[in-house]
Amino acid sequence: MPYVNIKITREGTTTPAQKAELIKGTTELLARVLNKSPETTVVVIDEVDMDNWGIGGLPVENYRQQKKT
Amino acid sequence: MPYVNIKITREGTTTPAQKAELIKGTTELLARVLNKSPETTVVVIDEVDMDNWGIGGLPVENYRQQKKT
Amino acid sequence: MPYVNIKITREGTTTPAQKAELIKGTTELLARVLNKSPETTVVVIDEVDMDNWGIGGLPVENYRQQKKT
Amino acid sequence: MPYVNIKITREGTTTPAQKAELIKGTTELLARVLNKSPETTVVVIDEVDMDNWGIGGLPVENYRQQKKT
Amino acid sequence: MPYVNIKITREGTTTPAQKAELIKGTTELLARVLNKSPETTVVVIDEVDMDNWGIGGLPVENYRQQKKT
Amino acid sequence: MPYVNIKITREGTTTPAQKAELIKGTTELLARVLNKSPETTVVVIDEVDMDNWGIGGLPVENYRQQKKT
Repeated sequence: MPYVNIKITREGTTTPAQKAELIKGTTELLARVLNKSPETTVVVIDEVDMDNWGIGGLPVENYRQQKKT
Repeated sequence: MPYVNIKITREGTTTPAQKAELIKGTTELLARVLNKSPETTVVVIDEVDMDNWGIGGLPVENYRQQKKT
Repeated sequence: MPYVNIKITREGTTTPAQKAELIKGTTELLARVLNKSPETTVVVIDEVDMDNWGIGGLPVENYRQQKKT
Repeated sequence: MPYVNIKITREGTTTPAQKAELIKGTTELLARVLNKSPETTVVVIDEVDMDNWGIGGLPVENYRQQKKT
Repeated sequence: MPYVNIKITREGTTTPAQKAELIKGTTELLARVLNKSPETTVVVIDEVDMDNWGIGGLPVENYRQQKKT
Repeated sequence: MPYVNIKITREGTTTPAQKAELIKGTTELLARVLNKSPETTVVVIDEVDMDNWGIGGLPVENYRQQKKT
């Protein structure tokens, strides 16, 4: 009965089909590696606004900008 | 000074009164069982979009559909 | 299928019976208020070392000391 | 490579500049105190709706109201 | 730069190799489905004591016992 | 009344004084930037076993090894 939380930036382009694939993939991984029952495996995806995600001391958009230059 | 996080699916029908009841109930439970001070008990409720909640390897809506049939 | 996370300080005096009561109480609260199925309600309790819990800008033991004086 | 999660109430007045300051400040703190590399320090800010934040057994707005009176 | 948190019960039998497989599997899943860079994908595994994990309103060991009978 | 969770690898060298500094620094940051009351700011530090922390698709120790070579 694992609980998995996936946090990603909200890019506005993530589709329901992609989320379903993350849910399926994580659940299968836990079943395969640790023999966890899919029936009680919970997966929660958090899409986080770009303003609210920091890396390298910067909001992610500034960080990406900086990486490019 | 406990911290409680409650994650539920966003069904669109959860009222502020119901949320207040969850906050009150959890805080009272911690006061009763562990003698924790309500004054510093924090409760955070996360309502998670249906697309972003998985159970049984499926997004929750597909899962419920499947259970019915 | 809610997921609840309860974080409390590790006081060394919390018994398995008290934890069972927190699990039961939270699950019943969600069933009563939001009609959530106990069967898929997950509750995870984290006991956090006193050094690792801060309130009022201080580790909790210093904070309690200060409150007393 | 620390991960920091900051949860605050969504007051509607928090600006991107303030969030950037939280990200910068936390990342610098971890670099200064624990010598953690900013490059792999992730900061995620969650803004939580007022209805969904409880303190003292009450939703935060009721709590503030009560404190005033 | 996703962040993934996997919570499982501490069974005392989970090996470092299995944990490495969970880390690898999750990171590859996010790269494949969402094109996320492995370099900044963080995975944190929490092993939770059996006493501290509840399902169906019971600590997980009681729950498993009950299921068997 | 913010809640802050800091996750770091358990290196075995982090002292109580360093943790106190993280608690103080984060609480002051939130007071300075967002005018949040220190009195109700909660900071929880999680020290995560090296086996349980992944980056770049590898457990952190393997990752660091690889970076060196």
